[in-house]
Amino acid sequence: MTRMPLDDMNCSIARTLDVIGDAWTPLILRDIAIGITRFDAIQRDLGISRKVLSERLGSLIEHGVLQRVPYQTKPVRYDYYATEKGADLGFVLLAMQTWGNRWIFDEQGPPLLLRHEPCGATIEAVTACSNCGEQLSVGDLTPLPGPSFDPDSPEVSAALERREAAFSAARGSS
Amino acid sequence: MTRMPLDDMNCSIARTLDVIGDAWTPLILRDIAIGITRFDAIQRDLGISRKVLSERLGSLIEHGVLQRVPYQTKPVRYDYYATEKGADLGFVLLAMQTWGNRWIFDEQGPPLLLRHEPCGATIEAVTACSNCGEQLSVGDLTPLPGPSFDPDSPEVSAALERREAAFSAARGSS
Repeated sequence: MTRMPLDDMNCSIARTLDVIGDAWTPLILRDIAIGITRFDAIQRDLGISRKVLSERLGSLIEHGVLQRVPYQTKPVRYDYYATEKGADLGFVLLAMQTWGNRWIFDEQGPPLLLRHEPCGATIEAVTACSNCGEQLSVGDLTPLPGPSFDPDSPEVSAALERREAAFSAARGSS
Repeated sequence: MTRMPLDDMNCSIARTLDVIGDAWTPLILRDIAIGITRFDAIQRDLGISRKVLSERLGSLIEHGVLQRVPYQTKPVRYDYYATEKGADLGFVLLAMQTWGNRWIFDEQGPPLLLRHEPCGATIEAVTACSNCGEQLSVGDLTPLPGPSFDPDSPEVSAALERREAAFSAARGSS
């Protein structure tokens, strides 16, 4: 059985994976976010083949995630920078970093720290509510059908109905 | 050239990708997060082969991300649930969802909405500072060597020094 192509799936997570869904791509974006912006430097840092790196950079430019700016001519060489769309993927990387720091590097401490310049502290990225600003607990979120929801996903529809019923019951009994 | 195995890399992002670094795994975790917790239901929803689904579930159990609980015997069948470690990966999925909603489903509206039960609003997950609580801008973060930093990464060391020098210069001139 073959899966529906990621770029046909009616799911924001699938469509994000269509852009960054292999291990190389997030690591390339990580290097560029840190400030390793040149082909040779990324290639050396990751130990990636020139062919694969060239393909991935091309795909990220095509997706509007990266742009390239020449830093020399004859021969022309580029710095690769994130666009606004690409910089926004930084929040996905930050969520990965927070998870890895907590669950993999808990004992030895994290490889990289982050200083938040506006407040000056060494911080971690946490996930908060866009409305009330409180830190989110995954259990406090109820998924609901959105404007582009696909009602032809029987498993998803049934799961959402079970969730809604469970929350209604919880509210009724409180 | 072959890459260092992900589970040897001294990077929280790489070590997270070692757990969720293919397209199937985040989609399986998405289904379980929504409440699609049974093998057959996940298999039908994703159109994944039984063999691949079984492998992925096994790997997630081995990583301590999922646990399984029998819901019937003869034959035994399981519900798959996230552990605390697995539920915490929900923040990576939420960051992906926020990105996909903004950059892929901007015009038609998102497939799924999230209601934050404590405040009652339909919200998006945003990324905030663990210290001051303000919403993060990626450009406000300076990466610094942490306790388990690997000084044998010349590209990373050089990039961090450039960042630090740039911020010092900016502070000096303001």
